[in-house]
Amino acid sequence: MATFEQAEYEARIARTKAEMAARGLDALVVTDVANMHWLTGYDGWSFYTPQCVVIGQELEQPLWIGRGIDVNGARVTTFLKPEHIHPYPDDYVQTPLKHPMGWAGQVLEGYGLGGKRIGVETDSYYFSPRALGALQGALPNASFQDADLLVNWLRIVKSPAEIALMQQAGEIMDLVMSTAIESIDPGVRQCDAAAAIYRAAVSGTPEFGGDYPAIVPMLPTGLGTSTPHLTWSDAPFRSGEATILELAGCRLRYHCPQARTLFLGSPPQRLAEAAKWVVEGIEAALAAARPGATAEAVERAWRETVARGGLLKESRIGYSCGLNYPPDWGEHTLSLRPGDTTELKPDMTIHLIPGIWQDDWGIEISECFRVIERGAEPFCTTPRELIVKR
Amino acid sequence: MATFEQAEYEARIARTKAEMAARGLDALVVTDVANMHWLTGYDGWSFYTPQCVVIGQELEQPLWIGRGIDVNGARVTTFLKPEHIHPYPDDYVQTPLKHPMGWAGQVLEGYGLGGKRIGVETDSYYFSPRALGALQGALPNASFQDADLLVNWLRIVKSPAEIALMQQAGEIMDLVMSTAIESIDPGVRQCDAAAAIYRAAVSGTPEFGGDYPAIVPMLPTGLGTSTPHLTWSDAPFRSGEATILELAGCRLRYHCPQARTLFLGSPPQRLAEAAKWVVEGIEAALAAARPGATAEAVERAWRETVARGGLLKESRIGYSCGLNYPPDWGEHTLSLRPGDTTELKPDMTIHLIPGIWQDDWGIEISECFRVIERGAEPFCTTPRELIVKR
Repeated sequence: MATFEQAEYEARIARTKAEMAARGLDALVVTDVANMHWLTGYDGWSFYTPQCVVIGQELEQPLWIGRGIDVNGARVTTFLKPEHIHPYPDDYVQTPLKHPMGWAGQVLEGYGLGGKRIGVETDSYYFSPRALGALQGALPNASFQDADLLVNWLRIVKSPAEIALMQQAGEIMDLVMSTAIESIDPGVRQCDAAAAIYRAAVSGTPEFGGDYPAIVPMLPTGLGTSTPHLTWSDAPFRSGEATILELAGCRLRYHCPQARTLFLGSPPQRLAEAAKWVVEGIEAALAAARPGATAEAVERAWRETVARGGLLKESRIGYSCGLNYPPDWGEHTLSLRPGDTTELKPDMTIHLIPGIWQDDWGIEISECFRVIERGAEPFCTTPRELIVKR
Repeated sequence: MATFEQAEYEARIARTKAEMAARGLDALVVTDVANMHWLTGYDGWSFYTPQCVVIGQELEQPLWIGRGIDVNGARVTTFLKPEHIHPYPDDYVQTPLKHPMGWAGQVLEGYGLGGKRIGVETDSYYFSPRALGALQGALPNASFQDADLLVNWLRIVKSPAEIALMQQAGEIMDLVMSTAIESIDPGVRQCDAAAAIYRAAVSGTPEFGGDYPAIVPMLPTGLGTSTPHLTWSDAPFRSGEATILELAGCRLRYHCPQARTLFLGSPPQRLAEAAKWVVEGIEAALAAARPGATAEAVERAWRETVARGGLLKESRIGYSCGLNYPPDWGEHTLSLRPGDTTELKPDMTIHLIPGIWQDDWGIEISECFRVIERGAEPFCTTPRELIVKR
């Protein structure tokens, strides 16, 4: 039931081992949920208790270590042999008395990794200071090394099978955005629009179903458009107000996000003017995005364009995007911002989202695109403009 | 726009300061998202970048420290004065060059906390080893102390306003479960049932809307019922198979979860028999749950009852539940299991979920209840039984 062919996982593991070797690592303890999935296929909402996948240079297969009640999930969703699946007892769960990562350390010891060089992901979600302390405490003779984002960077160029999933996510995204636009009208409760958006995202198309996006629908409205990460309330949408829609389609954990701004009524000149410049800036950025261009060059193309319209944005305008779990669909590698000299390569996938937030208003229009030989290919088809419903 | 009256937040902060004083703490860096919300009202899907609330014994109000683009969210959702809201610049976001918690350390230094005793939540989600290291690096003269779950334990008894929200969540839960039962039939795709469930949960009732549950709908079916944390696929439900529904209603971040098991067709004797014992065990546990009883006594009442039916469960059968954000609706305090001697008090709220998972099948039936003077009061009304659709 794993998402990809076993050969694809084996190639990913081989690339991981090569990077580990380059850094002198004997083992890598992978706690980033997306990285665990990418390496083994493991899937399940079990990341609220500690779990990890361990790659060892000398190990034939990765090890899966997690809670006992999730063992059957590991059997069902991965290609791992049963002897590589190691459950910890339930009395390790959420207790001050002991920690599952201490138990994981004992498993590593059992594989002869007790005195070895071990990489850990020091800034991954769901790997706490206490978890690291428990692992280190159980392996006093190991030497630990920060290997944060080691696997994330290997994931940045997508395989053909991954691109196919993102294209399906793009199809779902088009459905989700058209549903959102249809749902929002004066007097409609925000929660009812969010409900319709969720339904479209999860149901997907008649050919393939949707998965849960790593971020919930964000739809700040009115004054709320001055900030990007509000969700929804019971209050109705109102005529004469804007709503920012930051949404995603998701297919088997692969995301295509997109943002649009919707105005109910006749938009103020300020907003219409900003939209014109944001769209022009996006087009300049997309035109600059091609193999060999740097991430910062793409941002510069945007910035120089919108500066002509008097717009300034201090935060990054995009990031590598695709496979992930809550709380983020970004991949924490490439960022479109000054100083990021990562060179674009074919089949990188990037969410270009130059949101503008001012004191009492804001606008977001975005595109998720794939780098192809001749430039940038957006995954979606929704018109790139301020959406106006009069 | 904060959920509760300011006086309620002030009382919570006072209780937190009292507990900090008892532990000799001058300041507490709160990174648990639910704790941040409980103390200040802060709400938003911004926890994918580092953020915290700081309680200082000498500070008039908490400090909010987070990403610049989320400042307006802090202004809109909290009662904090603008001078207590401290945004970090966007070039701190997701970069190996520097870390937002290093910036947070500088803010604490500016408030004279540089040489003080500072509590941190060492096992909270979204507080990584690198984050702690950056905070400590910026405050070399501070002494750090583990204050994990300090605030969580203060949250375990709910206020009348919190109970009211959980009762609303219970009303939503009843709607969600009836929607799930209606939606699942042979031939229906799992994703379409999940979509209908989401819609019901988020839309809520005509009187009040729903919020996003901290865990997505879990609906393992067929062989998948042997493990609790699978979500859904495109495959259709099939006659002759069971589906476990572990769902929640959520109202303004307060959850009422519930599980039921649904069988399409005529259930095997084994499952019907197990259901009978599970229900009897739940009733015994509910009868044992009253002020003054210990958490382990509630578990014992369950265990001794189902043992008569030959059932054995090694994992905990419940936990404190209410306010939370992804990835968990549990509160990480009380667990219904041997060794937990926490005494139940009125207005504790507990999810009693004695799931049974065997090699190739499983069953879950659960109740979320409030401890009241005379015993346990479930929030929901869905019949407590194996649901059979023939």
